[in-house]
Amino acid sequence: MAKEYDVVILGGGPAGYVAAIRASQLKLKVAIVEKYKLGGTCLHKGCIPTKALLKTAEQWRSLKKAASFGVEVDNFSLNFTQAQTRKNEVISQLHQGIQGLMKKGSIDVYTGMGRILGPSIFSPLPGTISVEYDEDLEKENEMLVPKNLLICTGSKPRQLDVLPFNHTTILSSDDLLQLETLPKKMAIVGGGVIGIEWASMLSDLGVEITILEAFDKLLPSEDEEIAKALMKNFQARGMTVQLQANISQAQSTESDVTLTINGEEQCFDKVLVAVGREAIVNGIGIENTDIKIEKNYIQVNKNYQTKEAHIYAAGDVIGGIQLAHVASHEAIHAIEHMAGLKPDVNEKQIPSCIYSYPEIAHIGLTEQQAKVEFSNIVSKKFPLKGNAKALVNGEDFGFVKMIVNQDTDDLLGVHLIGDHVTELIAESSLAFTLDASAWEMGHTIHPHPSVSEVMQEVSLAIHDEAIHY
Amino acid sequence: MAKEYDVVILGGGPAGYVAAIRASQLKLKVAIVEKYKLGGTCLHKGCIPTKALLKTAEQWRSLKKAASFGVEVDNFSLNFTQAQTRKNEVISQLHQGIQGLMKKGSIDVYTGMGRILGPSIFSPLPGTISVEYDEDLEKENEMLVPKNLLICTGSKPRQLDVLPFNHTTILSSDDLLQLETLPKKMAIVGGGVIGIEWASMLSDLGVEITILEAFDKLLPSEDEEIAKALMKNFQARGMTVQLQANISQAQSTESDVTLTINGEEQCFDKVLVAVGREAIVNGIGIENTDIKIEKNYIQVNKNYQTKEAHIYAAGDVIGGIQLAHVASHEAIHAIEHMAGLKPDVNEKQIPSCIYSYPEIAHIGLTEQQAKVEFSNIVSKKFPLKGNAKALVNGEDFGFVKMIVNQDTDDLLGVHLIGDHVTELIAESSLAFTLDASAWEMGHTIHPHPSVSEVMQEVSLAIHDEAIHY
Repeated sequence: MAKEYDVVILGGGPAGYVAAIRASQLKLKVAIVEKYKLGGTCLHKGCIPTKALLKTAEQWRSLKKAASFGVEVDNFSLNFTQAQTRKNEVISQLHQGIQGLMKKGSIDVYTGMGRILGPSIFSPLPGTISVEYDEDLEKENEMLVPKNLLICTGSKPRQLDVLPFNHTTILSSDDLLQLETLPKKMAIVGGGVIGIEWASMLSDLGVEITILEAFDKLLPSEDEEIAKALMKNFQARGMTVQLQANISQAQSTESDVTLTINGEEQCFDKVLVAVGREAIVNGIGIENTDIKIEKNYIQVNKNYQTKEAHIYAAGDVIGGIQLAHVASHEAIHAIEHMAGLKPDVNEKQIPSCIYSYPEIAHIGLTEQQAKVEFSNIVSKKFPLKGNAKALVNGEDFGFVKMIVNQDTDDLLGVHLIGDHVTELIAESSLAFTLDASAWEMGHTIHPHPSVSEVMQEVSLAIHDEAIHY
Repeated sequence: MAKEYDVVILGGGPAGYVAAIRASQLKLKVAIVEKYKLGGTCLHKGCIPTKALLKTAEQWRSLKKAASFGVEVDNFSLNFTQAQTRKNEVISQLHQGIQGLMKKGSIDVYTGMGRILGPSIFSPLPGTISVEYDEDLEKENEMLVPKNLLICTGSKPRQLDVLPFNHTTILSSDDLLQLETLPKKMAIVGGGVIGIEWASMLSDLGVEITILEAFDKLLPSEDEEIAKALMKNFQARGMTVQLQANISQAQSTESDVTLTINGEEQCFDKVLVAVGREAIVNGIGIENTDIKIEKNYIQVNKNYQTKEAHIYAAGDVIGGIQLAHVASHEAIHAIEHMAGLKPDVNEKQIPSCIYSYPEIAHIGLTEQQAKVEFSNIVSKKFPLKGNAKALVNGEDFGFVKMIVNQDTDDLLGVHLIGDHVTELIAESSLAFTLDASAWEMGHTIHPHPSVSEVMQEVSLAIHDEAIHY
C-alpha cells in the first residue's frame, strides 16, 4: 500500500535529518528514507569521527607538555583501540540523539534504499519513492507518495584512476576510520581539508607522514598566508610535504604500496586518497525524472528546486561548498520554501573550518580574491603571541587576518590559524550576517583575558588603533 | 626640573598602560607613573596568574580522563612549584611585552610613587605629579606637569574586620599567588568571582575546599539558574558550600585557623578572604584637589572626568564593574575625550567571565533583572549535551540561556556555563553592540561541529525552531 506524505526526504545526513525536523516543526507530514544510518557521512564517516580522533591527538600532545604546567607524568602510551572505541561511543550517542529527535517530531524513518519512480499509478508526477530492502529482510518494497521530495543523498570519497581503493593499503577516509593499528609510514594524497586533518592527527600520534599534493600549494581555497603558515608548521613537526606531486603508478602488495611520484619510487605502509568527494546521483532513479545533472551534481535554483519544481535537492549532492552546516542550511531553506514561507535567498556567508593542529577557520574572501573584486582593500594581521590568554594556554602559534573594504569599512574576509580558532569564527559569522564594520567589531568589548580579544585587536588594527601590537 | 606632558597617567594597570598606548597613537606626549610594575593587578595579581594556575588545574583534570581518549598514563604527580614557575614566566613574558609597547609608543615610564599636588609654582591647577622614589634609590623626586591627568590607581583586596590578613594563614588572593605548597584543607570566604575561581582550581588540585558565603547564594550577580548549576557542580566534586555563613571569630596559630561559623568551630590550614576589592584612593594626594570621593570611589562623569575637569579617572578606582576590559575601555574613552575626540557615551554592554571549571560567561541582564525591567520576555536554554562538539570534547556539562524581549526580539541577556564558554561570549558581545535580534543570531550559519552552534540553537529556540532539542 502506498503512504502519502507532505514531504519525503531521501537521505538522512545533516541535510536530510535536519530538514525532517524543520518539516515537522512546520506541521508537515514527513518521512525520511536512509539506507544506512541517520546522521550520514558527517556523523558516521566525516566530521564527528575525525574530530573524536583529533581530540585523542590533542590529549596526546597535551600530555607531552604537561610537565611545563607542573603536571609530571612517568610513562604514557597510546591505546589506539580505545581511541577508536571512544570515537564509536560518541557516534553512537549522537546517533541515538538523532533517533530521539525523529521520534519527538513524529517523523517516519524508513531504513532502506529509496528509489525515485516516474509517473505511475501512485502519482501523475515523478517522485514517488520505492523503498527497497535487502532481500534477507523478507520485507516488501514500500511506496511513499510525497507532495514534495527532497533529495539529500550526499557524497562519497572520490577515487583516482591511478590509485583505486583496495581498502587494505590504498584507503579512503571511510577505510581509515576502521583502522585497528596505526601504520608506521603513510602517504596522504591530497592536501585539502580532509588530507590535512588526517595528516595532523596521524603525525601527532607518531605516524611518519608524507603529503602529496598535485597543485603548487596546500589548501587552495584558503588565504595564501594561512596555507603557507600551516605548511611551515607541518614541516617543522616533521611531516614531508611534496607539492606538484604527480603520481604515475602505484604497486601494492599485501603490506605496502610503492608510488611512483614525479618519476621516483617511494614506499608506504598505507596510502590515504583524499582528493574530494563525489555526489551520489546514481541508482536513485534520477533518470525517471527531468532533474538536470551537470558535472555529476543535481542542478537547483535559489530555492533548491530541481527542474521538477516539486522535487528539491540539498547538501553535497548539489555540489558547492560540501560542509555539514551548509547542507543543513540549504535543507531548511528547501523545506521552508515547500511550506510556503519565503526564506531569505541572499547568499549567506559560510564559515569554513579545518580541525587540524593548528586549526584554521575563515569566512568571506581571501586577500587574493578581495584584490580582484575590490579596488581599495586593507588587510591586517594580529598574532596570537600578542594575546595574553594564548600565552596562558601555552598555545600562541598563529594569527588572525582581516581584510576590509577601505571605502566602506565592510569586512571582506576573516582568516584564523591557531589553537581552537574554529570556535572564534562564530563572531565573524554574525558580523557578516549583520554587515558589521571593522569599527564596530573593534569597539565591541571583548572579555579579558580571552583569545577572542584578537578579533578586537585586528579590527582596531585596520584603523591603526590596535593596543597590543 | 619639571617636565611637561599632555597627559600623565597615575597607575600602569590595564586602564593606565592601555590609556598610554592610545594617547601615544593620538600623538599626545604621555608619561605613566607606576610604583610597582606595569600591568597592574590584572597581570601580576589577578586575571593572568590565576588563569595560568587554572590552566595547570585543567591539565591535571585532562590527565585524569586521558585514558578514556586512548591515552594511558602510568603515574602522574603535581609539581606545584613548577606550576608557580610557569605562572611567573607567563607574567614575565607579558610584562616584557608591555614594556616593549611603552618603548614603541615613546611613552615615558616613571617607576615610583606618584602623588598629586595642589596648585603650585608648577601650575595654577592641581594635578602636578610628584614622583617619589624609595629612599635607598638615592634618586630625587621628579615633577611632572600634565595638561591632563588620568588616575588609574586600581584596587586592592578588601579585608574583613573579623579576619584581618596575616599573610600566613589568613590570606588575600595576592598572598595565595605566592604559595609554595598546597594546603590540605582550606576555607574560602566569599562566593564571588575570585573565591569561585580559587575554589575550583584548588579543589581540582586536591585541596579540601569549604566555601563560606554570607549571602544565601553564590555569585549574586549571575543569573540564578547559572549560579545554582555551578553550586551543584561544585558540591558534586566534593566541595562544601556553606551559605548564610556568619563568621564571628577567627583564632589563628602558626599552622591553622579556627573559624567560628554560625556559632560552630571549624579548623582550616589556610583561609582565603575574597570579599571584593577596594579602590586605592589614599596616599595619592586626592586631598589636594576638588575630586569627589563617594563610598571610597572617585566620582566621574560620563567622559570619566572628575570634579576637576582636566583630571580623569578610570578602572577599579571609580568602582562599577571591576574588570580589566572595562578598565581599558574607560581609559581609552578618557584619553579620546582629552584629545578632543567624541567617544560614544552610550552605555556599552560588558561581557563578564568566570574562569572556574566549569566556566561562566554572561552579558546583559539576568532573567530576574529582565523580569523587572520588561513586561514580556521569553527565556530559553540549550544544553551542551545537545551539541556534537561538546560530546566530542568530552565536556558536555552546562548550558546556554538566552533572554529576549518578546515584543522586539531584542537580546536582553545571554548566560553560559560550561567548558571554555568564556570564548563563546564574544559573539554575544558583538550581538549586543549591533542590537542583534534572536532571529539574526539564529539565522547566522555557525560551523559544524563547534560548540558555538549552541548560540544558534538557543536563538532558534526563542522562536521554537531549535533543531537539536
